[in-house]
Amino acid sequence: MAKHGKLKGNMVIGQSGGPTAVINQSLVGAVLAARKRDEITGILGARHGIAGIMAEDFIDLSTQSKGQLEKVANTPAAALGSVRLKPGKAECEKVFEVFRKNDVRYFFYIGGNDSAETAHIISEMAREANYDFCTVHIPKTIDNDLKVTDHCPGFASAAKFVALAFMGDDRDNRALAGIKINVVMGRHAGFLTAASALARQAPDDGPHLIYLPERVFDRDKFKADVKRVYKKLGRCVIAVSEGVADADGNPIATTGEKDSHGNVQLSGTGALGDTLAALVKEAFKGEKVRVRADTFGYLQRSFPTIISEVDAKEARMVGKFAVKQAVAAGTNGSVAIRRIKSNPYESACFITPLASVAREATHMKDEFINAAGNDVTKKWLNYVAPLVGKLPKMGRL
Amino acid sequence: MAKHGKLKGNMVIGQSGGPTAVINQSLVGAVLAARKRDEITGILGARHGIAGIMAEDFIDLSTQSKGQLEKVANTPAAALGSVRLKPGKAECEKVFEVFRKNDVRYFFYIGGNDSAETAHIISEMAREANYDFCTVHIPKTIDNDLKVTDHCPGFASAAKFVALAFMGDDRDNRALAGIKINVVMGRHAGFLTAASALARQAPDDGPHLIYLPERVFDRDKFKADVKRVYKKLGRCVIAVSEGVADADGNPIATTGEKDSHGNVQLSGTGALGDTLAALVKEAFKGEKVRVRADTFGYLQRSFPTIISEVDAKEARMVGKFAVKQAVAAGTNGSVAIRRIKSNPYESACFITPLASVAREATHMKDEFINAAGNDVTKKWLNYVAPLVGKLPKMGRL
Repeated sequence: MAKHGKLKGNMVIGQSGGPTAVINQSLVGAVLAARKRDEITGILGARHGIAGIMAEDFIDLSTQSKGQLEKVANTPAAALGSVRLKPGKAECEKVFEVFRKNDVRYFFYIGGNDSAETAHIISEMAREANYDFCTVHIPKTIDNDLKVTDHCPGFASAAKFVALAFMGDDRDNRALAGIKINVVMGRHAGFLTAASALARQAPDDGPHLIYLPERVFDRDKFKADVKRVYKKLGRCVIAVSEGVADADGNPIATTGEKDSHGNVQLSGTGALGDTLAALVKEAFKGEKVRVRADTFGYLQRSFPTIISEVDAKEARMVGKFAVKQAVAAGTNGSVAIRRIKSNPYESACFITPLASVAREATHMKDEFINAAGNDVTKKWLNYVAPLVGKLPKMGRL
Repeated sequence: MAKHGKLKGNMVIGQSGGPTAVINQSLVGAVLAARKRDEITGILGARHGIAGIMAEDFIDLSTQSKGQLEKVANTPAAALGSVRLKPGKAECEKVFEVFRKNDVRYFFYIGGNDSAETAHIISEMAREANYDFCTVHIPKTIDNDLKVTDHCPGFASAAKFVALAFMGDDRDNRALAGIKINVVMGRHAGFLTAASALARQAPDDGPHLIYLPERVFDRDKFKADVKRVYKKLGRCVIAVSEGVADADGNPIATTGEKDSHGNVQLSGTGALGDTLAALVKEAFKGEKVRVRADTFGYLQRSFPTIISEVDAKEARMVGKFAVKQAVAAGTNGSVAIRRIKSNPYESACFITPLASVAREATHMKDEFINAAGNDVTKKWLNYVAPLVGKLPKMGRL
């Protein structure tokens, strides 16, 4: 942490982790705020986050026109490029070396809890080295799994995509009845899958069943649930989080591949959908039932035009707040959102210590999940609806 | 065909086949036109197409408010319910019997070439029985594979979804580089997959490769294509039609299941995407390359709010024209669209004989596909762009 009012020098901003539809709103919010501050002498955009910093691969962000930046703000997925690197101590030292060399006094890192952790390690190095420096983590994740904050920028737009997708798919399933399984992103947290419930407008609208990684996925219970709904409605639309696992914590289906974090690959494959479809067919053995599975995949995190207004506004707000706060108070931390009220929706930013957000992520509260573990509650809808905003009303004959 | 000016009685309207985002525009266009005609005494909506007619499962469509109908028009997927039944002679006879019994003199069937065939068989029965009767087929299909017409209502909205999805996914792939395969609907015709090319705004924008069912899918050529693009750009976004097949006409991957038409199931499974991802991994054996596959699935045909304006307008227009023409001229046929000009876009309806549209479908012209068989041409873009309409401009740093 720097002494108040003394910090003058260059700033670096980077983007990390999976893209969102509004991650560039945060970038543009921070850049435009920085341009107004004399304390910030140069604005450097790091290409592909920490990887670009180590390679000194920077873009000068002080020259673009406001029009170009606004276009970038409205474009999904990290415009600076992203990275999935969780840096070790040696890499953080390299980053810090580059910062010292380039007189970087402000570092803004847009990302999830891993990015907060990176920012935290570097801020500790600066403190130990007595180097005046301020690091602020700017939150983003479609998973909505950061601690402290009420919710994360990026989530509500992805949630809107999921809600609309289920709304249309439920009409599709109504027109040509059958059992439809839709796999939604979310390794450990079910927020995005749970947003599918916003698709419901009439009592028999789907999704009729929702399975979240916060609850054990029991194959037999799943089959029984689907049979019960199908018997009642003659159709069934199901939302399943890609991260569902059995009682031993084993994923229900994967390709066996691992991603760059050493996690089992869940996205970018239809394996879980196909496995669940096979389970359903097994449950209905001998009966003629149409079973289909879709995996929403990467579309849900970077679809142009499907943007929550609140999300876009807040993503801009957290970027702007990070810079304003860093210059004014010099406090290291992570920007979080406080919900002031839900109706009409109002929110504000505050700063929380990096350590309170770094490393561990969070997941859905118990009060958001029904007792049977196959649906959400009214409290969940009250929480999520104002973030996603208005959805079209489906017509019916 | 009825003698001009003599035909008075009830009308039946039904919807058939896979849903589209604008299929209810055609329904509402026809219903509102019918309400204005004294010749049409009752308006019956058949639930689930031909199946509902046989069961005399009708909805009275003369009573809904205009507001309710407009809401239905803007809702994706057949509001009357759809059906995948290709009726045989016995079933057509049953339909005709129901028509006679209920003094049905007009029959409008919204669907693809199978629906045109059904309408054709029934019109022949009426002619042989000397029963005054007029049948008009109203075109819809996201596949865009009907003969005679310039294009099909339903296609352009699905094409817009595909273009936007690739636009966002290309940003995603740019931010976190790798090889991304997206499987798009289209069993025999590549129109929808080819619409992915509309996502390109800069020379290095994806999709970088496009594989259509109109060309043999050669595994080795595919691997070589992907390696070439990846070597040049360090990333590769690929559009593949679900219907691609090898030189012997065998699909590249399926679950082995068949649908109700006896066709091999292609949609509602991630099998093709996963098979192609495995092929790419094989091609890059020993190298660290991130490979992911998404299957767009049912989302592309029923996503609320992603609507082409031209498509919505034309879908309404063909429904209205069908009724107007049937009452005025009594001619059996299928409504087709003639493109008057592309810039600014203008079109008009005309009637083509049912036999000219029934049974066989069409596919992409040779002039729309490049010589290497892995991309589209400028002519294709000129054809498709006016139908899809304005797309957002992606920003770039």
